[in-house]
Amino acid sequence: MIAWNNMDTLSSFKALQETERVDLVSAMSGDSGARRVKSYTVPMGAGMDFNFGARPVDDKILAALQNFAEEAQLSEKFEALYNGAVINTGEKRRVLHHLCRGQLGEAVVADGVDKRAFYLGEQKKIADFADKVHAGEITNAAGETFTTVCQIGIGGSDLGPRAIYLALENWAKVTGNLKMKAAFISNVDPDDAAGVLSNLDLARSLFVLVSKSGTTLETLTNESFVKDALRKAGLDPARHMIAVTSETSPLAKSADYLTAFFMDDYIGGRYSVSSGVGGAVLSLAFGPEVFAQFLDGAAEADKLATNNNLMENPAMLDALIGVYERNVLGYPCTAVLPYSQALSRFPAHLQQLDMESNGKSVNRFGHPVSYATGPVIFGEPGTNGQHSFYQLLHQGTDIIPLQFVGFRSSQMGVDVQIQGSTSQQKLCANVAAQIVAFACGKDDENLNKKFNGGRPSSIIIGQKLTPAAVGALLAHFENKVMFQGFAWNLNSFDQEGVQLGKVLAKKVLAHETDGALKVYSDLLNI
Amino acid sequence: MIAWNNMDTLSSFKALQETERVDLVSAMSGDSGARRVKSYTVPMGAGMDFNFGARPVDDKILAALQNFAEEAQLSEKFEALYNGAVINTGEKRRVLHHLCRGQLGEAVVADGVDKRAFYLGEQKKIADFADKVHAGEITNAAGETFTTVCQIGIGGSDLGPRAIYLALENWAKVTGNLKMKAAFISNVDPDDAAGVLSNLDLARSLFVLVSKSGTTLETLTNESFVKDALRKAGLDPARHMIAVTSETSPLAKSADYLTAFFMDDYIGGRYSVSSGVGGAVLSLAFGPEVFAQFLDGAAEADKLATNNNLMENPAMLDALIGVYERNVLGYPCTAVLPYSQALSRFPAHLQQLDMESNGKSVNRFGHPVSYATGPVIFGEPGTNGQHSFYQLLHQGTDIIPLQFVGFRSSQMGVDVQIQGSTSQQKLCANVAAQIVAFACGKDDENLNKKFNGGRPSSIIIGQKLTPAAVGALLAHFENKVMFQGFAWNLNSFDQEGVQLGKVLAKKVLAHETDGALKVYSDLLNI
Repeated sequence: MIAWNNMDTLSSFKALQETERVDLVSAMSGDSGARRVKSYTVPMGAGMDFNFGARPVDDKILAALQNFAEEAQLSEKFEALYNGAVINTGEKRRVLHHLCRGQLGEAVVADGVDKRAFYLGEQKKIADFADKVHAGEITNAAGETFTTVCQIGIGGSDLGPRAIYLALENWAKVTGNLKMKAAFISNVDPDDAAGVLSNLDLARSLFVLVSKSGTTLETLTNESFVKDALRKAGLDPARHMIAVTSETSPLAKSADYLTAFFMDDYIGGRYSVSSGVGGAVLSLAFGPEVFAQFLDGAAEADKLATNNNLMENPAMLDALIGVYERNVLGYPCTAVLPYSQALSRFPAHLQQLDMESNGKSVNRFGHPVSYATGPVIFGEPGTNGQHSFYQLLHQGTDIIPLQFVGFRSSQMGVDVQIQGSTSQQKLCANVAAQIVAFACGKDDENLNKKFNGGRPSSIIIGQKLTPAAVGALLAHFENKVMFQGFAWNLNSFDQEGVQLGKVLAKKVLAHETDGALKVYSDLLNI
Repeated sequence: MIAWNNMDTLSSFKALQETERVDLVSAMSGDSGARRVKSYTVPMGAGMDFNFGARPVDDKILAALQNFAEEAQLSEKFEALYNGAVINTGEKRRVLHHLCRGQLGEAVVADGVDKRAFYLGEQKKIADFADKVHAGEITNAAGETFTTVCQIGIGGSDLGPRAIYLALENWAKVTGNLKMKAAFISNVDPDDAAGVLSNLDLARSLFVLVSKSGTTLETLTNESFVKDALRKAGLDPARHMIAVTSETSPLAKSADYLTAFFMDDYIGGRYSVSSGVGGAVLSLAFGPEVFAQFLDGAAEADKLATNNNLMENPAMLDALIGVYERNVLGYPCTAVLPYSQALSRFPAHLQQLDMESNGKSVNRFGHPVSYATGPVIFGEPGTNGQHSFYQLLHQGTDIIPLQFVGFRSSQMGVDVQIQGSTSQQKLCANVAAQIVAFACGKDDENLNKKFNGGRPSSIIIGQKLTPAAVGALLAHFENKVMFQGFAWNLNSFDQEGVQLGKVLAKKVLAHETDGALKVYSDLLNI
């Protein structure tokens, strides 16, 4: 029987608070540092490793975290989730995104349908469609092939698919897998759509309209914008647009689209990259085989997340060290720092994933919690960030835990040797150096040049950023966020906090405002 | 005589701490809310207004902030700065970026040169060069015009110029001012350069190498990468590259460049957009007249920053409300939320500007401070962010002050009417709605749907994002960060916190490591 309890009611959490803290500077120095970094590493799927040598834990704290994981029943909760329990209690929904990439437990039958079979069926439909587009069997009215796929969606229908596209675009170029270029329109700001369209060959572009409900105002607005542009160019919008939506949405059977692919209410927007939301645009851009490799990488990470033993479960381990940093050490933010330009928008995806899932003040029963929950997540790729906000990370008054990601090889394989090393070596040398600089610091008589150290980080290391690697990365963080939500006793799968703004925006547009809202509306000429 | 004292030694700061706090929910409700929003607004240059109705201040707190500004001598410190005092004490340098856009005080003569004349001279040289490129007087070896300008630089040589280019690219398209497309290479990750170059027509591309010292490793590495690519394409790199650097750098008189434009040590990287660092690429992309408009907008904001009266000095006002939020109310982060897709990378620039300037734990004399300094800065454009991290902003356990930016008109002027309103109206309605939702909240019996409110924000409102507007925006935030640095008694113009990582990275590349650093180096195959 699963008990859903607030974290601060668990004796294992109190024990964790009382466990002696680690002095990271001394722990990471000398031979002990070398031993830590060698032993504090866990495989995380797709040939990658999660190394937490520089996080502020030791064997005693890890044992306390293991006890906490057990008392909080994190594995049992994940098991219930992937077996189809209604984990999203607020919206009374199952949480099934893992089923897009594998079957971790029992068959999940909902509404009379085996959900794994349903998701696989949609993947197959998408793959067939993409193959036909690539083969020139589906073309524009003039019989020309489509060369660009443009996603119209916002939030989860934008950030994740865009981040993964950018992560693999250059890899696809050099491996011959770039079937179509992708573009993205998300913002209701009309300059977003106008700017993107000004760079496209409309006649050769295929648009993917993504809205689960079929009612997302930004997305429907941008659909109209695009249809206007297509018509003005003498093109028939219905020949240039497909939909990804739920079977019950107004978009599902519309003649406005070449075809529609389906998702359902059991996959939340920010967890939907593995569904048709990511599947359509990524299969069109890179081919269905590449998307399948991406899903396989995610499935590997999911499988590891089922382990009870923290040392064989990198997502749970990352999650609980994060809880320790947030609730015992009191750190307010986490930075995500990929040493890979291809992952430039991955932090923006994680920002949604994490902050929308766990940025909450009430538990899953709607009662206020008396501890901090989700931290602010931000980040930019290294080495760029080193020349930007790392000053604060090294010497600011707050300690910000860091999540590095690095790869031994570049994606494109073109490089240059300067001062005895390649760019890739410089990139890797910098991330290694940063971890140690943050952890160990450096003394100096001039305090302006002194580094206190004690600033924790982990690093995920892979050979190369491939489709499988990016799949495992994505799933790792999805599962990390899920485990943290379990630890904090939150419902990580609703987002009631986005509703009030929508309601008030409608009032503004209907001119039904008074007080401050009316003044702002006037100032903005609405 | 200026006294540089820590904030917590000032009696006005203690008085500020003791001033009664504002209940933002009630202050922003009803008629009082309307009155606040109408009266709490200050012109900030280029036709824009800084509205702080929803920040947690009232007339008493504003009076206390005015007293603090006076006791901390913020205006006198700015005056000393623009008159050429050595404000960057650590590096023993003047701080002269304001001189790129106007002369606020006395002539500043350094090293026997009038610096305003020097910066104007470089602007003139850049303008002449750009005009010749646009007129086809400077071409590639085949006599073809250059169509693309590609900046090679990192940190301040990348983030600011890139953010401003993106801010004006679509505006330039529709106003006939897009003379050349711009691209940017920054990261030492070889996939950055390789990816960018794969999208360029090398033969028609002009590269701008930007490094003040002429020794930035990432930038020199990327220069080599680009030269390799040019040579492989049968092109002469010296005909495709200009430099922006200091007169004493190794790049200054090199035959490797068509020409070189100069800056000096008195303009820090993150404050260098107004110098040749931004000037070359932006004048080439948009023409020198547009860059001049940008500088004029910045000059307008600078002029306002000289006012002693807080209510006529939006940068100082914004700065001090931020100090109040950080040090009295204890908020750890600030989000920058432009409701303008064109400002998509403006938050990334502000992240460097703010966190690298004020992310420090010692005062300008190298003594530890006992109060929080620069907050974490992050942000994404709205409405995108609403579908991402706003959940945490509305209902998370931390309060994050917000800085909105909005414009009444779009840049491109193409729009669509859906459900009775245009996209631009929807965009503006959303930002108005968010401000009130954050400030006032909403009660609900279901606590999961309850919004506590009390979450502060300000908004900068302009008519349209023009070159002058973006110049004023940039200068506003530069001056805000400067005033906060004065308040915290920091040197906001050095960045010693970036040094240790560089030193350790060199050791890794030289294989001079032991302990943890050696293990990380091995794991990354360096």
